Amino acid sequence: MKNIGIAIHGGAGTILRSKMTPEKETGYRRALEEALKEGWDILNSGRSSLDAVERAVELLENNPLFNAGKGSVFTHEGKHEMDASIMDGKTLNAGCVSSVSNIKNPVLLARLIMEKSGFVYLSGKGAEKFAAYHNLAFEKDEYFYDEFRYKQYLSALEKDNVILDHSYESTEKKFGTVGAVAIDSEGNLASATSTGGMTNKKFGRIGDSPIIGAGTYANNSTCAVSCTGNGEYFLRSVTAYDVSALMEYRNMSLEDASDLVVHTKLKALNGEGGIIAIDKDNNISMTFNSEGMYRASVKTGKEIEINIYK
Amino acid sequence: MKNIGIAIHGGAGTILRSKMTPEKETGYRRALEEALKEGWDILNSGRSSLDAVERAVELLENNPLFNAGKGSVFTHEGKHEMDASIMDGKTLNAGCVSSVSNIKNPVLLARLIMEKSGFVYLSGKGAEKFAAYHNLAFEKDEYFYDEFRYKQYLSALEKDNVILDHSYESTEKKFGTVGAVAIDSEGNLASATSTGGMTNKKFGRIGDSPIIGAGTYANNSTCAVSCTGNGEYFLRSVTAYDVSALMEYRNMSLEDASDLVVHTKLKALNGEGGIIAIDKDNNISMTFNSEGMYRASVKTGKEIEINIYK
Repeated sequence: MKNIGIAIHGGAGTILRSKMTPEKETGYRRALEEALKEGWDILNSGRSSLDAVERAVELLENNPLFNAGKGSVFTHEGKHEMDASIMDGKTLNAGCVSSVSNIKNPVLLARLIMEKSGFVYLSGKGAEKFAAYHNLAFEKDEYFYDEFRYKQYLSALEKDNVILDHSYESTEKKFGTVGAVAIDSEGNLASATSTGGMTNKKFGRIGDSPIIGAGTYANNSTCAVSCTGNGEYFLRSVTAYDVSALMEYRNMSLEDASDLVVHTKLKALNGEGGIIAIDKDNNISMTFNSEGMYRASVKTGKEIEINIYK
Repeated sequence: MKNIGIAIHGGAGTILRSKMTPEKETGYRRALEEALKEGWDILNSGRSSLDAVERAVELLENNPLFNAGKGSVFTHEGKHEMDASIMDGKTLNAGCVSSVSNIKNPVLLARLIMEKSGFVYLSGKGAEKFAAYHNLAFEKDEYFYDEFRYKQYLSALEKDNVILDHSYESTEKKFGTVGAVAIDSEGNLASATSTGGMTNKKFGRIGDSPIIGAGTYANNSTCAVSCTGNGEYFLRSVTAYDVSALMEYRNMSLEDASDLVVHTKLKALNGEGGIIAIDKDNNISMTFNSEGMYRASVKTGKEIEINIYK
């Protein structure tokens, strides 16, 4: 019997029940289910965990509900700058991209960088040139235009503050990064993360999403991890790799390592957000210290689980 | 008695004795000594390890012998794109910058980002805008022009390959990143790293130097680390944080952790380069798996050591 599993997230933060309508909730649940199922089908057909996480993240990027790809928020200059990364737990190969515009699916670019560039991390106009050279799909600015995001942007400009992802109000925090982790029938782990950044972000700010060790990590000997939260704290804490290190060096379980990292270590720095992780024995952990995290998982012998709140 | 210490590096790689003249060697040794001494004087006067590593790296950036700041190599487009990072082991605060041009001292920008931006990691034109806003020193392209580097660039363009840092020949590898680690009289650790990247680099490639956890890490409870080498392997291995994790979670000594990371873990991926590290007890480790590494160190009760080869 194949022992396969996949977990995905669509961001964490203060997701207030009072602001959530049944229609909105259905929309989020449907989007998560669709991405999860496609990832699952890939694993179930014997294909790799890399293919599964890439496809799941691609679908989340294509949905304007999430702050990644099509749903990316506006920067201070009224543009879209996206970051993504992917890691192969079998080879420890990785691909990272930051500050790209007009790329339809940054996660596909991250994979292309991993497999075709000879580098690990490309950025900005140079990365876009690499994408064009390999005929990756570009979209015009209009594709990324979303009325809700644009109003967020105008509101943030007016207040001149920086809104973390798709908050309904500036006092309400949401970290709309998307991500996926999976294990395939050959026991290979993989993870991927993608984000549209922060509304009204300035100065070419980069968070943890494109960074191996911070937002994304995968290693067949331990686990695969994808993070979402206020990226500064995840960068400083090297969060994704820390889960792996605690398992490898302290023999902690995936759950204990995830809990320690999210509820103790991140908390100590006032870091907010969550992680999804899967280990080599197909344990899945979805841990967050914020009000909610859009998340879903399925594995051999278990039904699909889709949740938003604690 | 104050127990203070500082170590610096000016890059690792295949530094062939046959290509090294006494004049060149004297130049490198003098530059390392000058940077080390200024860092030491700062520590000795009771100032912070952050100030010491910042100043030491600033001086190495100002010296065209090293591939950072003034001595940065040419990108494929004939420009200079620089990366740097700094981390404070007391607070785990950090500042990172990548893909900036015309900034005289990227390490000063990294510190400014840490202290004034509210972010951790800024990049490209946005980071330059932030630097200008804070009146950081800019230099024209001519400042970064160096005949030796330009010839390297023309030669690489002709062969259309990517030369890692300041190689004399494309078969000879050198990773010219600079860095510093220090402990001050209050027991606070800090580290900083700065690089001019790779000759003829394309597509906005970023290495490990600006990444917390990969090229730079500092934590008062363990150690401070700065790396140099082919950055792709350091990114995938989360090298700088790994040294800290091995000390914290496995109770390894600084030397054992450094040796494992450089001689076993990096080697397993064919990664080449080295690290400098200092721990909370003022042990200093300068480990590399390449032919040589420009390096120097001094600490309470020990004379200055300056070395290039094994």
